[in-house]
Amino acid sequence: METKPFALSVKVIVRGPDGRCLLLRRSSASKGNPGKWEFPGGKLDPGESFDAGLLREVIEETRLSAVDVQLTRAVGVAQSEVGDRRVVYLFMEAIAGSSDVELSEEHDAYDWVPVSDLQTRDLAPQYQDIARQYARSCAGTG
Amino acid sequence: METKPFALSVKVIVRGPDGRCLLLRRSSASKGNPGKWEFPGGKLDPGESFDAGLLREVIEETRLSAVDVQLTRAVGVAQSEVGDRRVVYLFMEAIAGSSDVELSEEHDAYDWVPVSDLQTRDLAPQYQDIARQYARSCAGTG
Repeated sequence: METKPFALSVKVIVRGPDGRCLLLRRSSASKGNPGKWEFPGGKLDPGESFDAGLLREVIEETRLSAVDVQLTRAVGVAQSEVGDRRVVYLFMEAIAGSSDVELSEEHDAYDWVPVSDLQTRDLAPQYQDIARQYARSCAGTG
Repeated sequence: METKPFALSVKVIVRGPDGRCLLLRRSSASKGNPGKWEFPGGKLDPGESFDAGLLREVIEETRLSAVDVQLTRAVGVAQSEVGDRRVVYLFMEAIAGSSDVELSEEHDAYDWVPVSDLQTRDLAPQYQDIARQYARSCAGTG
């Protein structure tokens, strides 16, 4: 029986003003998946509300303005083993009124990517399935 | 633009010793969806860890023993408008070593249901899609 504890990480697929999706590249000093692309997000702080925590993580990592980012819907889940934990990634979608990103030290590059191209990027392994599912869910909706 | 805040609810599809899934019927006094079937779970308490909160909710609503319930994997998400909030339901799967359930006041009946029959039960509307997805994900795996 697998007994590693589960932890929750919230991730956000941010759509820019032109509908492209924001990807961030993990810096070369990252402990996990250096140089791989990912979506903004992270762990909620103790006691922090769900939507406040989601927006805080996005803003810390992108410097997008809080008034410019609106959460729109739940997208899906992913899961990965990270050290002594199993991490559940809960993916939300948001739209941003601006594409002016300023990175934190966690990342060294960003890109706004057409949803149909998400799967062609060098994503961290735990995000590949959800990127494919998300692209499929958006196909035909513009 | 929809600006209702999002809240998170964690739900658990509990598989019993024979593989059946636990459904609980909301009591007739429930504010939302009285008499409809649902899965155990609820909101995490402020500061509570993800897996501890999941298990606490299951145990409060079923009196299954904590040592008998093991979380196995993330299943998916659902979403619903509840009053002035949009609630995201994050579904996990667990296996239980016992099927001896004792209900709280929130529910007035329980049933252990074959996964293939989940969709035939009178589920609360926000759980119908995830029940279908879950049954599909289990098809062929026994």
